[in-house]
Amino acid sequence: MTSPLTHHTTPDNQAPDELNRQRAAVAALGRELRALVETAVRTTAEPETLHRVADGVRSLARQLTGRRRAHAETPAVDEFPGGVRMYSPVTGPGSPLAPPVHVTPVEDGVAGTCTLGIAHEGPPGYGHGGMSAMLLDELMGWACTAAGMPGMTIGLQLRHHRPVPLQTPLHLSARVIGTDGRKIFVAGSITTDDDRSATLVSADGTFVAPDPDRARALFPSLREET
Amino acid sequence: MTSPLTHHTTPDNQAPDELNRQRAAVAALGRELRALVETAVRTTAEPETLHRVADGVRSLARQLTGRRRAHAETPAVDEFPGGVRMYSPVTGPGSPLAPPVHVTPVEDGVAGTCTLGIAHEGPPGYGHGGMSAMLLDELMGWACTAAGMPGMTIGLQLRHHRPVPLQTPLHLSARVIGTDGRKIFVAGSITTDDDRSATLVSADGTFVAPDPDRARALFPSLREET
Repeated sequence: MTSPLTHHTTPDNQAPDELNRQRAAVAALGRELRALVETAVRTTAEPETLHRVADGVRSLARQLTGRRRAHAETPAVDEFPGGVRMYSPVTGPGSPLAPPVHVTPVEDGVAGTCTLGIAHEGPPGYGHGGMSAMLLDELMGWACTAAGMPGMTIGLQLRHHRPVPLQTPLHLSARVIGTDGRKIFVAGSITTDDDRSATLVSADGTFVAPDPDRARALFPSLREET
Repeated sequence: MTSPLTHHTTPDNQAPDELNRQRAAVAALGRELRALVETAVRTTAEPETLHRVADGVRSLARQLTGRRRAHAETPAVDEFPGGVRMYSPVTGPGSPLAPPVHVTPVEDGVAGTCTLGIAHEGPPGYGHGGMSAMLLDELMGWACTAAGMPGMTIGLQLRHHRPVPLQTPLHLSARVIGTDGRKIFVAGSITTDDDRSATLVSADGTFVAPDPDRARALFPSLREET
């Protein structure tokens, strides 16, 4: 479920086997949590059942004892910048919020595939408009990285042409269309996988590659070599 | 946790007491799921522990048996359009994805408060840029509703001035700034609750109130009187 763009990366402090076992376990828990989330937002169960399950959820959380990573600490299973983000709320196999989007390089940028669940619903039967923004913001960031210019979003303009269906395979695409100094201009779109000619949402974004001083100020945990 | 704008609404088919008990149970499960999600994306537990918890999550999902609401079916605990959305991925007390945002009417529009968790992380220590879009898209929709013109987003332009901190109370605001036929123009912004003078993200949005035929085509489950 990790992106083929990046799954070969290995943080220095872990043996590849150990890292792969850890990532697989993070992804397994992410998968079950996504299924539980989807079940929880669809069930019509009685209050007694919901309270009993809530108690069970609280007990499970208590089993995840031991150290928690600190605020702004990069997870040991991740590579930042430009690498695997196991807990990304868009692409992360370990994130219960992510569809997750699977990203692949294509000739002129990056493509993504995902299916939104009822947990991502805005208007009945359709994805939340902000969820489309989230998908495109992330994929357009990947397009910058794929072009060798990792950057942060400074502007994003979205146009919603048609509502985005839930429970339907989607196709996302993004590509760098120009640069101006540290600024990177990116275009992106969402269609269904079945009909790639009918654009559901399109976007233009401006990203900026932070200069090294700004990057260190924003991300104190950033490794020195980056 | 439901919005004071709307928490007095009651779907026709449920007695208020029964409805309140159901909503309280939905919110209780949502709260525990949010806590588990936040724990799961922060833990550094060993693979064995993660797999054991994943098994526990799968067992819990099996306890939510019985009827599931269908695709595009409005939940019995909800009022659509313009009312309580218990499972909204932004404001829903029953959504494990939502911070959730608490919306209140203010003199010239609506205000929102929320705190993003590590589950909403984009760059290390900061909210995902798409999450800001999600917060603003939703709050700007509430501004339309509060002004008596519920609408759907057709365009949203975001400007990210500074990164949005995690685990920090945020203040959101949105207001209608003009209309043109069925089009509604809305402005919104995000600051920290502590420093409302430093805009982190600002947005301009165009919403449209669908005409009745279009609304019926998009939302077949919509009640006749709406």
